[in-house]
Amino acid sequence: MSNEYLTATQEQISRRQVLTGAGTLAAGAVLAQVGGMVSPARAVGGSTEEWPWPYKKLDPEKTAELCYAEWYRVFCGAVISSVFLQLRELVGEPYLSFPADGFAYFEGGQMGWGTICGAPAGANLVANLIIGPRINGGSTAGHQIATEMMEWYSQTELPIYVPKKPKVTAKLPTTVSSSPLCHISVGRWMKATNKPLGSPERQDRCARVAASTAYHLVELLNAWKEGSYEANFEFDCIKQHGISGQFNCADCHSSGVPTAPKEEQPKT
Amino acid sequence: MSNEYLTATQEQISRRQVLTGAGTLAAGAVLAQVGGMVSPARAVGGSTEEWPWPYKKLDPEKTAELCYAEWYRVFCGAVISSVFLQLRELVGEPYLSFPADGFAYFEGGQMGWGTICGAPAGANLVANLIIGPRINGGSTAGHQIATEMMEWYSQTELPIYVPKKPKVTAKLPTTVSSSPLCHISVGRWMKATNKPLGSPERQDRCARVAASTAYHLVELLNAWKEGSYEANFEFDCIKQHGISGQFNCADCHSSGVPTAPKEEQPKT
Repeated sequence: MSNEYLTATQEQISRRQVLTGAGTLAAGAVLAQVGGMVSPARAVGGSTEEWPWPYKKLDPEKTAELCYAEWYRVFCGAVISSVFLQLRELVGEPYLSFPADGFAYFEGGQMGWGTICGAPAGANLVANLIIGPRINGGSTAGHQIATEMMEWYSQTELPIYVPKKPKVTAKLPTTVSSSPLCHISVGRWMKATNKPLGSPERQDRCARVAASTAYHLVELLNAWKEGSYEANFEFDCIKQHGISGQFNCADCHSSGVPTAPKEEQPKT
Repeated sequence: MSNEYLTATQEQISRRQVLTGAGTLAAGAVLAQVGGMVSPARAVGGSTEEWPWPYKKLDPEKTAELCYAEWYRVFCGAVISSVFLQLRELVGEPYLSFPADGFAYFEGGQMGWGTICGAPAGANLVANLIIGPRINGGSTAGHQIATEMMEWYSQTELPIYVPKKPKVTAKLPTTVSSSPLCHISVGRWMKATNKPLGSPERQDRCARVAASTAYHLVELLNAWKEGSYEANFEFDCIKQHGISGQFNCADCHSSGVPTAPKEEQPKT
Protein backbone atom coordinates (compact mmCIF):
# COMPACT_ATOMS: atom_id res chain seq x y z
CA MET A 1 0.00 0.00 0.00
CA SER A 2 2.46 2.59 1.12
CA ASN A 3 4.94 1.91 -1.63
CA GLU A 4 2.38 2.28 -4.40
CA TYR A 5 1.23 5.44 -2.77
CA LEU A 6 4.49 7.36 -2.87
CA THR A 7 6.02 8.81 -5.96
CA ALA A 8 8.98 6.81 -7.10
CA THR A 9 11.31 9.68 -6.36
CA GLN A 10 10.09 10.26 -2.86
CA GLU A 11 10.21 6.59 -2.12
CA GLN A 12 13.79 6.39 -3.28
CA ILE A 13 14.76 9.28 -1.04
CA SER A 14 12.96 7.82 1.94
CA ARG A 15 14.53 4.44 1.45
CA ARG A 16 17.97 5.86 0.98
CA GLN A 17 17.61 7.89 4.14
CA VAL A 18 16.42 4.93 6.14
CA LEU A 19 19.24 2.77 4.88
CA THR A 20 22.09 5.21 5.22
CA GLY A 21 20.89 8.16 7.26
CA ALA A 22 22.44 10.27 4.53
CA GLY A 23 19.90 13.06 4.67
CA THR A 24 20.21 13.53 8.39
CA LEU A 25 23.97 13.43 8.30
CA ALA A 26 24.15 15.94 5.48
CA ALA A 27 21.89 18.42 7.24
CA GLY A 28 23.75 17.95 10.51
CA ALA A 29 27.02 18.63 8.77
CA VAL A 30 25.67 21.81 7.16
CA LEU A 31 24.13 22.93 10.44
CA ALA A 32 27.48 22.47 12.15
CA GLN A 33 29.29 24.14 9.28
CA VAL A 34 27.07 27.17 8.83
CA GLY A 35 26.66 28.14 12.43
CA GLY A 36 29.57 26.57 14.25
CA MET A 37 27.05 24.17 15.75
CA VAL A 38 27.71 20.55 16.39
CA SER A 39 24.42 18.96 17.38
CA PRO A 40 22.44 17.48 14.52
CA ALA A 41 18.90 18.71 14.25
CA ARG A 42 17.18 15.68 15.59
CA ALA A 43 19.05 15.48 18.86
CA VAL A 44 17.54 18.79 19.92
CA GLY A 45 14.01 19.00 21.27
CA GLY A 46 13.53 15.34 20.58
CA SER A 47 10.48 14.96 22.76
CA THR A 48 8.03 16.55 20.36
CA GLU A 49 9.67 14.76 17.45
CA GLU A 50 9.10 11.30 18.84
CA TRP A 51 6.07 9.78 17.20
CA PRO A 52 3.27 8.90 17.54
CA TRP A 53 2.20 11.50 20.06
CA PRO A 54 0.00 10.12 22.84
CA TYR A 55 -3.63 10.27 21.72
CA LYS A 56 -6.89 9.63 23.53
CA LYS A 57 -10.08 9.05 21.60
CA LEU A 58 -12.23 12.16 21.31
CA ASP A 59 -15.97 12.56 20.89
CA PRO A 60 -16.56 13.69 17.27
CA GLU A 61 -19.67 15.71 18.13
CA LYS A 62 -18.03 17.50 21.06
CA THR A 63 -15.04 18.23 18.83
CA ALA A 64 -17.29 19.66 16.11
CA GLU A 65 -19.13 21.80 18.64
CA LEU A 66 -15.86 23.19 19.98
CA CYS A 67 -14.52 23.71 16.45
CA TYR A 68 -17.60 25.71 15.49
CA ALA A 69 -17.12 28.05 18.46
CA GLU A 70 -13.38 28.28 17.88
CA TRP A 71 -13.85 29.31 14.24
CA TYR A 72 -15.22 32.65 15.43
CA ARG A 73 -12.00 33.15 17.39
CA VAL A 74 -9.19 31.67 15.27
CA PHE A 75 -10.92 31.28 11.90
CA CYS A 76 -9.78 28.19 10.02
CA GLY A 77 -7.21 27.41 12.72
CA ALA A 78 -10.23 25.96 14.54
CA VAL A 79 -9.74 22.37 13.37
CA ILE A 80 -6.31 22.33 15.02
CA SER A 81 -7.39 24.04 18.21
CA SER A 82 -10.56 21.96 18.64
CA VAL A 83 -8.50 18.76 18.69
CA PHE A 84 -5.39 19.99 20.45
CA LEU A 85 -7.14 22.00 23.19
CA GLN A 86 -8.99 18.85 24.26
CA LEU A 87 -5.76 16.82 24.18
CA ARG A 88 -4.03 19.47 26.30
CA GLU A 89 -6.57 18.65 28.99
CA LEU A 90 -6.75 14.87 28.43
CA VAL A 91 -3.08 14.15 27.67
CA GLY A 92 -0.92 17.20 28.46
CA GLU A 93 2.35 17.35 26.55
CA PRO A 94 3.25 17.71 23.75
CA TYR A 95 -0.08 19.46 23.14
CA LEU A 96 0.56 21.98 25.94
CA SER A 97 3.63 23.23 24.09
CA PHE A 98 2.06 23.44 20.66
CA PRO A 99 1.15 27.00 19.60
CA ALA A 100 -2.30 26.21 18.22
CA ASP A 101 -3.46 29.84 18.17
CA GLY A 102 -0.58 30.67 15.83
CA PHE A 103 -2.45 29.00 12.98
CA ALA A 104 -5.15 31.64 12.66
CA TYR A 105 -3.31 32.60 9.46
CA PHE A 106 -5.01 29.59 7.79
CA GLU A 107 -7.93 32.01 7.27
CA GLY A 108 -9.09 32.52 3.70
CA GLY A 109 -6.75 29.90 2.25
CA GLN A 110 -3.73 31.43 4.10
CA MET A 111 -4.02 35.19 4.71
CA GLY A 112 -6.79 35.51 2.13
CA TRP A 113 -4.85 33.99 -0.77
CA GLY A 114 -7.50 31.38 -1.44
CA THR A 115 -5.06 28.43 -1.52
CA ILE A 116 -5.69 25.35 0.63
CA CYS A 117 -8.83 25.67 2.77
CA GLY A 118 -7.94 25.92 6.45
CA ALA A 119 -10.18 23.00 7.34
CA PRO A 120 -8.29 20.27 5.43
CA ALA A 121 -5.03 22.17 6.06
CA GLY A 122 -5.74 21.82 9.79
CA ALA A 123 -6.67 18.17 9.41
CA ASN A 124 -3.41 17.53 7.54
CA LEU A 125 -1.44 19.14 10.34
CA VAL A 126 -3.25 17.29 13.13
CA ALA A 127 -3.00 13.86 11.48
CA ASN A 128 0.66 14.28 10.56
CA LEU A 129 1.72 15.73 13.91
CA ILE A 130 -0.08 13.12 16.02
CA ILE A 131 1.03 10.12 13.95
CA GLY A 132 4.26 11.61 12.67
CA PRO A 133 5.97 12.13 9.30
CA ARG A 134 6.71 9.21 7.01
CA ILE A 135 10.39 10.18 6.73
CA ASN A 136 13.12 8.05 8.31
CA GLY A 137 10.95 4.96 8.37
CA GLY A 138 8.02 6.64 10.14
CA SER A 139 4.44 5.42 9.83
CA THR A 140 2.56 6.38 6.68
CA ALA A 141 -0.80 6.44 8.51
CA GLY A 142 -0.74 10.21 9.14
CA HIS A 143 -0.01 10.84 5.47
CA GLN A 144 -2.85 8.47 4.54
CA ILE A 145 -5.42 9.93 6.93
CA ALA A 146 -4.55 13.42 5.70
CA THR A 147 -4.96 12.28 2.08
CA GLU A 148 -8.29 10.69 2.93
CA MET A 149 -9.42 13.94 4.58
CA MET A 150 -8.48 15.94 1.46
CA GLU A 151 -10.48 13.58 -0.75
CA TRP A 152 -13.42 13.48 1.66
CA TYR A 153 -13.46 17.28 1.84
CA SER A 154 -13.42 17.57 -1.95
CA GLN A 155 -16.18 15.03 -2.59
CA THR A 156 -18.62 15.65 0.26
CA GLU A 157 -21.71 17.87 0.36
CA LEU A 158 -20.61 20.41 2.98
CA PRO A 159 -21.34 21.59 5.57
CA ILE A 160 -22.75 18.47 7.23
CA TYR A 161 -22.52 19.44 10.88
CA VAL A 162 -25.30 21.57 12.35
CA PRO A 163 -24.23 23.19 15.63
CA LYS A 164 -26.52 23.09 18.64
CA LYS A 165 -26.77 26.86 18.86
CA PRO A 166 -25.94 28.18 15.38
CA LYS A 167 -25.32 31.89 14.93
CA VAL A 168 -27.27 31.68 11.68
CA THR A 169 -30.47 29.78 12.34
CA ALA A 170 -31.60 29.36 8.73
CA LYS A 171 -30.81 26.04 7.05
CA LEU A 172 -27.61 26.46 5.02
CA PRO A 173 -27.35 24.94 1.54
CA THR A 174 -24.58 22.43 0.89
CA THR A 175 -22.18 22.15 -2.05
CA VAL A 176 -19.43 19.83 -3.27
CA SER A 177 -16.16 21.72 -3.75
CA SER A 178 -14.38 19.16 -5.98
CA SER A 179 -11.21 20.78 -4.63
CA PRO A 180 -9.41 21.35 -1.32
CA LEU A 181 -8.79 25.00 -2.27
CA CYS A 182 -10.53 27.77 -0.31
CA HIS A 183 -11.17 29.89 -3.39
CA ILE A 184 -12.99 27.07 -5.21
CA SER A 185 -14.80 25.69 -2.17
CA VAL A 186 -16.09 29.07 -1.01
CA GLY A 187 -16.69 30.27 -4.57
CA ARG A 188 -18.89 27.31 -5.47
CA TRP A 189 -20.93 27.78 -2.31
CA MET A 190 -21.30 31.52 -2.97
CA LYS A 191 -22.40 30.81 -6.52
CA ALA A 192 -25.00 28.27 -5.37
CA THR A 193 -26.40 30.50 -2.63
CA ASN A 194 -25.82 33.99 -4.02
CA LYS A 195 -24.42 35.02 -0.63
CA PRO A 196 -21.42 37.38 -0.61
CA LEU A 197 -18.12 36.66 1.16
CA GLY A 198 -18.90 39.07 3.99
CA SER A 199 -22.36 37.66 4.75
CA PRO A 200 -23.14 36.01 8.10
CA GLU A 201 -24.32 32.96 6.13
CA ARG A 202 -20.95 32.51 4.38
CA GLN A 203 -19.12 32.88 7.66
CA ASP A 204 -21.36 30.35 9.38
CA ARG A 205 -20.99 28.02 6.40
CA CYS A 206 -17.21 28.07 6.84
CA ALA A 207 -17.48 27.57 10.61
CA ARG A 208 -19.69 24.54 9.95
CA VAL A 209 -17.35 23.21 7.25
CA ALA A 210 -14.51 23.37 9.77
CA ALA A 211 -16.70 21.63 12.37
CA SER A 212 -17.70 18.93 9.87
CA THR A 213 -14.03 18.38 9.03
CA ALA A 214 -12.99 18.14 12.68
CA TYR A 215 -15.82 15.62 13.24
CA HIS A 216 -14.64 13.30 10.47
CA LEU A 217 -10.96 13.73 11.35
CA VAL A 218 -11.61 12.55 14.90
CA GLU A 219 -13.52 9.54 13.56
CA LEU A 220 -10.44 8.52 11.56
CA LEU A 221 -8.02 9.22 14.41
CA ASN A 222 -10.17 7.18 16.77
CA ALA A 223 -10.12 4.28 14.30
CA TRP A 224 -6.34 4.58 14.02
CA LYS A 225 -6.05 4.56 17.82
CA GLU A 226 -8.18 1.40 17.95
CA GLY A 227 -6.00 -0.19 15.28
CA SER A 228 -8.93 -0.46 12.90
CA TYR A 229 -8.03 2.34 10.45
CA GLU A 230 -7.90 1.23 6.85
CA ALA A 231 -6.98 3.75 4.17
CA ASN A 232 -9.97 4.53 1.97
CA PHE A 233 -9.19 6.87 -0.89
CA GLU A 234 -8.52 6.87 -4.61
CA PHE A 235 -6.05 9.76 -4.74
CA ASP A 236 -2.63 8.65 -5.85
CA CYS A 237 -0.21 11.29 -7.00
CA ILE A 238 1.69 8.76 -9.10
CA LYS A 239 -1.34 8.64 -11.41
CA GLN A 240 -1.65 12.41 -11.81
CA HIS A 241 -0.36 12.54 -15.35
CA GLY A 242 3.15 12.94 -14.03
CA ILE A 243 2.54 15.94 -11.76
CA SER A 244 1.25 16.52 -8.24
CA GLY A 245 -2.40 17.50 -8.52
CA GLN A 246 -5.97 16.30 -8.55
CA PHE A 247 -7.81 14.20 -11.14
CA ASN A 248 -10.31 16.82 -12.34
CA CYS A 249 -7.81 18.59 -14.62
CA ALA A 250 -10.43 20.20 -16.86
CA ASP A 251 -11.87 22.25 -14.01
CA CYS A 252 -9.04 24.73 -14.53
CA HIS A 253 -7.51 23.50 -17.82
CA SER A 254 -10.61 24.18 -19.86
CA SER A 255 -8.60 24.90 -22.98
CA GLY A 256 -6.67 21.63 -22.94
CA VAL A 257 -4.70 19.65 -20.39
CA PRO A 258 -0.92 19.92 -20.88
CA THR A 259 1.09 16.71 -21.12
CA ALA A 260 3.85 16.28 -18.57
CA PRO A 261 7.35 15.40 -19.78
CA LYS A 262 7.81 11.63 -19.71
CA GLU A 263 9.69 9.90 -16.92
CA GLU A 264 12.63 7.80 -18.04
CA GLN A 265 11.81 4.12 -17.83
CA PRO A 266 14.07 2.01 -15.60
CA LYS A 267 16.63 0.10 -17.68
CA THR A 268 16.09 -3.64 -17.58
CA MET B 1 -2.32 49.81 6.47
CA SER B 2 -3.55 46.84 8.43
CA ASN B 3 -7.18 47.88 8.30
CA GLU B 4 -7.25 48.23 4.53
CA TYR B 5 -5.55 44.92 4.27
CA LEU B 6 -8.13 42.83 6.08
CA THR B 7 -11.46 41.90 4.65
CA ALA B 8 -14.27 43.85 6.23
CA THR B 9 -15.66 40.69 7.77
CA GLN B 10 -12.42 39.58 9.31
CA GLU B 11 -11.75 43.02 10.64
CA GLN B 12 -15.16 43.14 12.28
CA ILE B 13 -14.55 39.83 13.98
CA SER B 14 -11.11 40.86 15.16
CA ARG B 15 -12.39 44.14 16.51
CA ARG B 16 -15.29 42.51 18.24
CA GLN B 17 -12.99 39.98 19.85
CA VAL B 18 -10.56 42.61 20.99
CA LEU B 19 -13.32 44.74 22.41
CA THR B 20 -15.36 42.10 24.15
CA GLY B 21 -13.29 38.93 24.28
CA ALA B 22 -16.46 37.23 23.08
CA GLY B 23 -14.72 34.66 20.90
CA THR B 24 -12.44 33.49 23.67
CA LEU B 25 -15.22 33.33 26.21
CA ALA B 26 -17.47 31.40 23.88
CA ALA B 27 -14.80 28.81 23.10
CA GLY B 28 -13.87 28.52 26.76
CA ALA B 29 -17.48 27.93 27.65
CA VAL B 30 -17.84 25.23 25.00
CA LEU B 31 -14.57 23.62 26.03
CA ALA B 32 -15.80 23.47 29.63
CA GLN B 33 -19.20 22.25 28.52
CA VAL B 34 -18.18 19.57 26.08
CA GLY B 35 -15.53 17.89 28.13
CA GLY B 36 -16.27 18.81 31.72
CA MET B 37 -13.21 21.05 31.53
CA VAL B 38 -12.96 24.40 33.21
CA SER B 39 -9.78 26.04 31.97
CA PRO B 40 -10.18 28.23 28.90
CA ALA B 41 -7.91 27.35 26.04
CA ARG B 42 -5.49 30.18 26.34
CA ALA B 43 -4.56 29.63 29.95
CA VAL B 44 -2.99 26.30 29.02
CA GLY B 45 0.50 26.14 27.52
CA GLY B 46 0.65 29.89 27.40
CA SER B 47 4.37 30.08 26.94
CA THR B 48 4.40 29.19 23.26
CA GLU B 49 1.36 31.38 22.67
CA GLU B 50 3.00 34.54 23.94
CA TRP B 51 4.19 36.57 21.00
CA PRO B 52 6.52 37.59 19.51
CA TRP B 53 8.83 34.64 20.05
CA PRO B 54 12.42 35.64 20.75
CA TYR B 55 14.28 35.99 17.45
CA LYS B 56 17.94 36.52 16.61
CA LYS B 57 18.98 37.71 13.19
CA LEU B 58 20.09 34.88 10.92
CA ASP B 59 22.47 34.85 7.99
CA PRO B 60 20.35 34.49 4.81
CA GLU B 61 23.03 32.59 2.91
CA LYS B 62 23.69 30.15 5.74
CA THR B 63 19.94 29.63 6.08
CA ALA B 64 19.60 28.94 2.36
CA GLU B 65 22.50 26.49 2.45
CA LEU B 66 20.95 24.62 5.36
CA CYS B 67 17.52 24.69 3.70
CA TYR B 68 18.95 23.16 0.53
CA ALA B 69 20.46 20.28 2.50
CA GLU B 70 17.32 19.86 4.61
CA TRP B 71 15.10 19.59 1.52
CA TYR B 72 16.64 16.21 0.78
CA ARG B 73 15.62 15.08 4.27
CA VAL B 74 12.23 16.73 4.98
CA PHE B 75 11.22 17.89 1.49
CA CYS B 76 9.34 21.19 1.56
CA GLY B 77 9.38 21.23 5.37
CA ALA B 78 12.93 22.53 4.86
CA VAL B 79 12.04 26.23 5.06
CA ILE B 80 10.70 25.69 8.57
CA SER B 81 13.53 23.47 9.75
CA SER B 82 16.29 25.68 8.29
CA VAL B 83 15.08 28.65 10.35
CA PHE B 84 13.93 26.85 13.49
CA LEU B 85 16.92 24.49 13.81
CA GLN B 86 19.23 27.50 13.91
CA LEU B 87 17.00 29.26 16.45
CA ARG B 88 16.99 26.12 18.61
CA GLU B 89 20.73 26.61 18.93
CA LEU B 90 20.79 30.41 19.16
CA VAL B 91 17.66 31.00 21.26
CA GLY B 92 16.41 27.68 22.70
CA GLU B 93 12.70 27.65 23.57
CA PRO B 94 10.10 27.78 22.13
CA TYR B 95 11.97 26.43 19.09
CA LEU B 96 13.22 23.39 21.01
CA SER B 97 9.63 22.29 21.57
CA PHE B 98 8.41 22.86 18.04
CA PRO B 99 8.07 19.65 16.00
CA ALA B 100 9.68 20.96 12.82
CA ASP B 101 10.20 17.51 11.29
CA GLY B 102 6.46 16.94 11.43
CA PHE B 103 5.98 19.26 8.48
CA ALA B 104 7.52 16.95 5.90
CA TYR B 105 3.92 16.49 4.73
CA PHE B 106 4.22 19.87 2.97
CA GLU B 107 5.80 17.84 0.14
CA GLY B 108 4.15 18.13 -3.26
CA GLY B 109 1.67 20.79 -2.16
CA GLN B 110 0.64 18.70 0.89
CA MET B 111 0.96 14.92 0.41
CA GLY B 112 1.19 15.33 -3.37
CA TRP B 113 -2.11 17.22 -3.80
CA GLY B 114 -0.43 20.12 -5.57
CA THR B 115 -2.02 22.82 -3.37
CA ILE B 116 0.16 25.48 -1.70
CA CYS B 117 3.87 24.99 -2.41
CA GLY B 118 5.71 23.96 0.74
CA ALA B 119 8.19 26.82 0.40
CA PRO B 120 5.72 29.72 0.87
CA ALA B 121 3.65 27.47 3.18
CA GLY B 122 6.72 27.15 5.38
CA ALA B 123 7.45 30.88 5.19
CA ASN B 124 3.85 31.60 6.22
CA LEU B 125 4.21 29.33 9.24
CA VAL B 126 7.57 30.74 10.31
CA ALA B 127 6.54 34.40 10.00
CA ASN B 128 3.22 33.89 11.77
CA LEU B 129 4.63 31.74 14.57
CA ILE B 130 7.57 34.01 15.32
CA ILE B 131 5.60 37.27 15.21
CA GLY B 132 2.26 35.79 16.22
CA PRO B 133 -1.32 35.82 14.94
CA ARG B 134 -3.20 39.07 14.41
CA ILE B 135 -6.14 37.88 16.53
CA ASN B 136 -6.87 39.42 19.92
CA GLY B 137 -5.00 42.60 19.11
CA GLY B 138 -1.80 40.85 18.00
CA SER B 139 0.68 42.37 15.57
CA THR B 140 -0.20 42.20 11.88
CA ALA B 141 3.48 42.05 10.85
CA GLY B 142 3.59 38.24 10.60
CA HIS B 143 0.50 38.28 8.41
CA GLN B 144 2.09 41.00 6.26
CA ILE B 145 5.47 39.29 5.90
CA ALA B 146 3.73 36.05 4.95
CA THR B 147 1.64 37.91 2.36
CA GLU B 148 4.76 39.56 0.96
CA MET B 149 6.45 36.15 0.73
CA MET B 150 3.48 34.73 -1.21
CA GLU B 151 3.60 37.62 -3.67
CA TRP B 152 7.39 37.48 -3.96
CA TYR B 153 7.24 33.74 -4.60
CA SER B 154 4.58 34.18 -7.30
CA GLN B 155 6.35 37.01 -9.13
CA THR B 156 10.03 36.03 -8.93
CA GLU B 157 12.15 34.08 -11.40
CA LEU B 158 12.95 31.01 -9.30
CA PRO B 159 15.15 29.40 -8.21
CA ILE B 160 17.56 32.23 -7.40
CA TYR B 161 19.83 30.56 -4.88
CA VAL B 162 22.68 28.42 -6.15
CA PRO B 163 24.02 26.12 -3.42
CA LYS B 164 27.75 25.81 -2.84
CA LYS B 165 27.78 22.11 -3.60
CA PRO B 166 24.71 21.42 -5.73
CA LYS B 167 23.65 17.82 -6.33
CA VAL B 168 22.86 18.81 -9.92
CA THR B 169 25.79 20.79 -11.27
CA ALA B 170 24.14 22.00 -14.51
CA LYS B 171 22.68 25.50 -14.50
CA LEU B 172 18.95 25.24 -13.81
CA PRO B 173 16.48 27.37 -15.80
CA THR B 174 14.24 29.75 -13.86
CA THR B 175 10.51 30.40 -14.25
CA VAL B 176 7.87 32.69 -12.78
CA SER B 177 5.02 30.69 -11.24
CA SER B 178 2.40 33.47 -11.10
CA SER B 179 0.90 31.39 -8.29
CA PRO B 180 1.82 30.05 -4.84
CA LEU B 181 0.43 26.61 -5.79
CA CYS B 182 2.82 23.66 -6.14
CA HIS B 183 1.01 22.24 -9.17
CA ILE B 184 1.31 25.47 -11.14
CA SER B 185 4.80 26.39 -9.97
CA VAL B 186 6.27 22.96 -10.69
CA GLY B 187 4.16 22.53 -13.84
CA ARG B 188 5.38 25.76 -15.41
CA TRP B 189 8.99 24.83 -14.66
CA MET B 190 8.50 21.33 -16.12
CA LYS B 191 6.93 22.81 -19.23
CA ALA B 192 9.80 25.26 -19.69
CA THR B 193 12.51 22.67 -19.15
CA ASN B 194 10.86 19.46 -20.42
CA LYS B 195 12.09 17.70 -17.27
CA PRO B 196 9.76 15.15 -15.65
CA LEU B 197 8.64 15.27 -12.01
CA GLY B 198 10.95 12.43 -11.02
CA SER B 199 14.09 13.92 -12.58
CA PRO B 200 17.07 14.95 -10.46
CA GLU B 201 16.83 18.41 -12.04
CA ARG B 202 13.20 18.91 -10.90
CA GLN B 203 14.12 17.77 -7.39
CA ASP B 204 17.10 20.10 -7.24
CA ARG B 205 14.99 22.94 -8.62
CA CYS B 206 12.54 22.49 -5.74
CA ALA B 207 15.35 22.27 -3.17
CA ARG B 208 16.74 25.54 -4.57
CA VAL B 209 13.29 27.19 -4.61
CA ALA B 210 12.96 26.32 -0.92
CA ALA B 211 16.47 27.68 -0.27
CA SER B 212 15.69 30.89 -2.18
CA THR B 213 12.50 31.31 -0.15
CA ALA B 214 14.27 30.75 3.16
CA TYR B 215 16.89 33.33 2.12
CA HIS B 216 14.32 36.05 1.44
CA LEU B 217 12.21 35.16 4.48
CA VAL B 218 15.21 35.69 6.76
CA GLU B 219 15.92 39.03 5.09
CA LEU B 220 12.39 40.18 5.98
CA LEU B 221 12.52 38.76 9.52
CA ASN B 222 15.87 40.48 10.10
CA ALA B 223 14.37 43.79 8.96
CA TRP B 224 11.40 43.24 11.30
CA LYS B 225 13.81 42.51 14.17
CA GLU B 226 15.67 45.74 13.41
CA GLY B 227 12.39 47.65 13.33
CA SER B 228 12.91 48.59 9.69
CA TYR B 229 10.37 46.26 8.05
CA GLU B 230 7.89 48.02 5.81
CA ALA B 231 5.21 46.01 4.09
CA ASN B 232 5.81 45.90 0.34
CA PHE B 233 3.09 44.11 -1.60
CA GLU B 234 0.07 44.77 -3.75
CA PHE B 235 -2.04 41.79 -2.71
CA ASP B 236 -5.21 42.83 -0.98
CA CYS B 237 -7.94 40.26 -0.66
CA ILE B 238 -10.57 42.99 -0.35
CA LYS B 239 -9.96 43.77 -4.01
CA GLN B 240 -10.30 40.19 -5.22
CA HIS B 241 -13.69 40.63 -6.83
CA GLY B 242 -15.34 39.74 -3.56
CA ILE B 243 -13.57 36.43 -2.96
CA SER B 244 -10.28 35.27 -1.49
CA GLY B 245 -7.89 34.66 -4.37
CA GLN B 246 -5.23 36.11 -6.60
CA PHE B 247 -5.51 38.80 -9.26
CA ASN B 248 -4.75 36.67 -12.32
CA CYS B 249 -8.26 35.19 -12.56
CA ALA B 250 -8.03 34.25 -16.24
CA ASP B 251 -5.18 31.80 -15.63
CA CYS B 252 -7.80 29.26 -14.53
CA HIS B 253 -11.06 30.97 -15.55
CA SER B 254 -10.25 30.96 -19.23
CA SER B 255 -13.90 30.72 -20.21
CA GLY B 256 -15.04 33.74 -18.22
CA VAL B 257 -14.54 35.02 -14.70
CA PRO B 258 -17.64 34.57 -12.50
CA THR B 259 -19.01 37.60 -10.68
CA ALA B 260 -19.23 37.30 -6.91
CA PRO B 261 -22.53 38.13 -5.20
CA LYS B 262 -22.52 41.76 -4.13
CA GLU B 263 -21.83 42.76 -0.54
CA GLU B 264 -24.58 44.78 1.10
CA GLN B 265 -23.57 48.41 1.40
CA PRO B 266 -23.51 49.86 4.92
CA LYS B 267 -26.67 51.90 5.58
CA THR B 268 -26.00 55.60 6.00
